[in-house]
Amino acid sequence: MGRYDLALIGFGGVNRALAELISQRGDRLADELGFALRVVAITDLRAGSLVDTDGIDLAPLLAAEPGELAFAGLPGGSADPRNEWVIREVPADVVVEATFTNPEDGEPALSHMRWALAAGKHVCTTNKGPVALACRELKQVAERHGVSFEFEGSVLSGTPILRTAERMFGGLEITGVQGIMNGTSNYILGRLEEGVELPEAIAQAQELGYAEADPTADIEGHDVQLKVMILANEVLGADLRREDVVCEGISKITPDYAQDAVSKGLRWKLVGSATRRADGTVDARVAPVALPGHHPLAGISGPVNAVAFHTDLLGTVTVSGPGAGRIETAYALLSDVIAIHQRHHAHDDTAPARRVLQETSRG
Amino acid sequence: MGRYDLALIGFGGVNRALAELISQRGDRLADELGFALRVVAITDLRAGSLVDTDGIDLAPLLAAEPGELAFAGLPGGSADPRNEWVIREVPADVVVEATFTNPEDGEPALSHMRWALAAGKHVCTTNKGPVALACRELKQVAERHGVSFEFEGSVLSGTPILRTAERMFGGLEITGVQGIMNGTSNYILGRLEEGVELPEAIAQAQELGYAEADPTADIEGHDVQLKVMILANEVLGADLRREDVVCEGISKITPDYAQDAVSKGLRWKLVGSATRRADGTVDARVAPVALPGHHPLAGISGPVNAVAFHTDLLGTVTVSGPGAGRIETAYALLSDVIAIHQRHHAHDDTAPARRVLQETSRG
Repeated sequence: MGRYDLALIGFGGVNRALAELISQRGDRLADELGFALRVVAITDLRAGSLVDTDGIDLAPLLAAEPGELAFAGLPGGSADPRNEWVIREVPADVVVEATFTNPEDGEPALSHMRWALAAGKHVCTTNKGPVALACRELKQVAERHGVSFEFEGSVLSGTPILRTAERMFGGLEITGVQGIMNGTSNYILGRLEEGVELPEAIAQAQELGYAEADPTADIEGHDVQLKVMILANEVLGADLRREDVVCEGISKITPDYAQDAVSKGLRWKLVGSATRRADGTVDARVAPVALPGHHPLAGISGPVNAVAFHTDLLGTVTVSGPGAGRIETAYALLSDVIAIHQRHHAHDDTAPARRVLQETSRG
Repeated sequence: MGRYDLALIGFGGVNRALAELISQRGDRLADELGFALRVVAITDLRAGSLVDTDGIDLAPLLAAEPGELAFAGLPGGSADPRNEWVIREVPADVVVEATFTNPEDGEPALSHMRWALAAGKHVCTTNKGPVALACRELKQVAERHGVSFEFEGSVLSGTPILRTAERMFGGLEITGVQGIMNGTSNYILGRLEEGVELPEAIAQAQELGYAEADPTADIEGHDVQLKVMILANEVLGADLRREDVVCEGISKITPDYAQDAVSKGLRWKLVGSATRRADGTVDARVAPVALPGHHPLAGISGPVNAVAFHTDLLGTVTVSGPGAGRIETAYALLSDVIAIHQRHHAHDDTAPARRVLQETSRG
C-alpha cells in the first residue's frame, strides 16, 4: 500500500483537525482509500517545529492545549519554525499549507508554496491568499516539477466546489458563477431580517464563533472578494487581480431594508459573482443583492454557503454546504490528497473513489 | 484521437436531444474532450431501425418531425426495430438505452442492457427501471465483460448526483440522502400553497409540460420510489427491492394544509429518503414532509430538484439542479460517455476534465 508523508505548515485549527483525522481514523482511511497518511513534520509560528522522518506520534500533541504546545526540547523539535528548511529539505510527499491568509501579497504562505513545489513536493492548501493572487503561477511551477497544487478548501471549506467545476461539467460551458461564500455576513443578514441592528448582529455572530474579533473582512466583502477571484480564475479561466473585483459589503443594509425586502418576497444576500461577458472577458464583483424567493441562493441561510453554476446545457446547478469549520476544512485537505493520489496513481488504480464508497457503505 | 461509436436504443426526446448535441457540437466536443462521437445505429419502436457502421448522417433525421420518422426504405433501414440483433451484432462501443421506464420488471430495457454488456459494449442509460431493479446484477455483468454501466441520468437528469456521491466524498461516510426528485409534484405543492386545488394544479402542470397525461406516478410517489431505490443501493450500498421502500404520495395534501404550514414557517415537500440505521441496514421511504424553512430542501421550488447528502465530516451537502428536460437528460448521457472515457483511457489521459475546462474557458 502506498503512503503519503505530510509536512504540516501551520498548526492552528485546520491542520490540527487534519492531524486528528489521521490520528483517529488513519487505519480506516487507509483501508478505504488504499494509501496511508503519516505526518513527518509540523511547523508553527508559536509552537516551533518538529521533525521525525519515521512519523510523528500525533496523540500526545493533540492531547495538549493548542496554546500550550511547544516543540522545543522534544526530539527533532525546535522553538524555531524553520519553515524554509522544513519545506525544502525534510523528505515529504505533500506540504500542507494552512497558515494565516494574507490578502495583500499572500506571504509568507506564497513563499512556502513556491519552495515546496520547486522541491518536487505536492501542495495542498486552504489558504485563500496565495490561491487568489498567484494560482496560475503556482500551477505552472507545479506542472514544471511534475507535482500537484490542490486547494479545494480555499472556497467553502470541504464542500466540493472547485472539484465539482473541474470534474462534473465536461462538455458543457459554465457561463457564470454566483455564490454566498461568507457565513458570517450571511448569518448577520438573517439577523437584520429579524430586526436586529448591525452592531448587535455582529456581536451575536462573534459569540457564536462565526465572526472574528475584527469582522471587517467578513462585513466589507474582502473575504468573498478573494473567493470570487479564485472562482473567476479557476472556473472561468480569467486572470483577475484584486482591483478587478468590485467589492461592496453589507454595512449599508439596515434592518428596515432587510425587512422591507422580505415583505416583498426578496432576501438580501451578499453575493459574489463572476460572469462571462459577450466579449469573452469576465465581470467579477461582490455586492449585496436582493434575490427573489425562487433564486437558488435565496434559501441559503445562516452559516451555510452555496455556489450556483450557470451553464449552457444544464441551466443552473447549485452546490451548498458548510463554508467553514475546523473538521470541514480539514476534510478539504484530505480530499486534496485523494485527488493527488488519483492523478498520480491513476495507472494502478483508476477508480478508487467508486470502490471506496461501496466498501464503506456495505461494511 | 479516439472515437466512440454509439447505438441509440429508443429515439424519443432524450436520445434525439443527444443526437442533436452530437450533430450540432460534435466537433467542438471532440476538441474539448479528446474523443469523437459517432452514431452507428438507431432503433425505435415506431420508426424502426437504421444501421450505418460508417456513421449515420444525423441532420436529415433531426430535420424530420419526430412522429413522422420512418427508417424503412433508407439504406440500412428497416421498419423492424431489430433491437436484439442491433445490440448484439452491430459493432458499437456504447449502447445508449433510452426506451420507456417500466417500474415492474424493467423490460424490455433490462434485456437490452444485458445483451449489450454481455456483448462487451458499455451501456449508458437514463432509464430508471432497470437501474432501480437490477443495478447490482448489471454492474456485475459489466465488470465480467470489462465494460462500464453508467446511469447518471436515472436520478435528476444531468444534475450530477450519483457521480457527486461516487467521486466527491472519498474518506467520509454518507449517513443518509434526502431528495426532492420529482418536479411535477414539487410544482403542484407550490400551487397548493397558493390556494389552488389539486385537480387544477395537476391540469396546470400538464399545460406546462411537467406532468404526463396520467400523472399517477408523479402524484403517488412511484417515480420518486425508483430514484430512492437507486440512491439507497448505489450510495448507501443497500440491496432494496420496491416493496422495501414505503411510498406515500401528495394526494392527501390540501391547499389548507399547505397554506397552514407556510404560516408556521414550514413547506410541504415530497421527500424521498434513504438513511442508514444503527444496525447498518437502510431505511428508505417516500412521503410528504413539512420541512422547516432552514432545511436545505425547503427552498427548492417548482421544477428544480435537489438531493441532500448527510455526512459525518461535512454535515449536509446539497446539490440542486434540473430534474428533467430533453437536453438536460441527454447531457447525463454525454457525461456517462465522458466517465467511460476517463475510466478506460485513464492510462493515456488522467485528467481530461481539468484540461477541457481551462481550454474551453480561455478560448
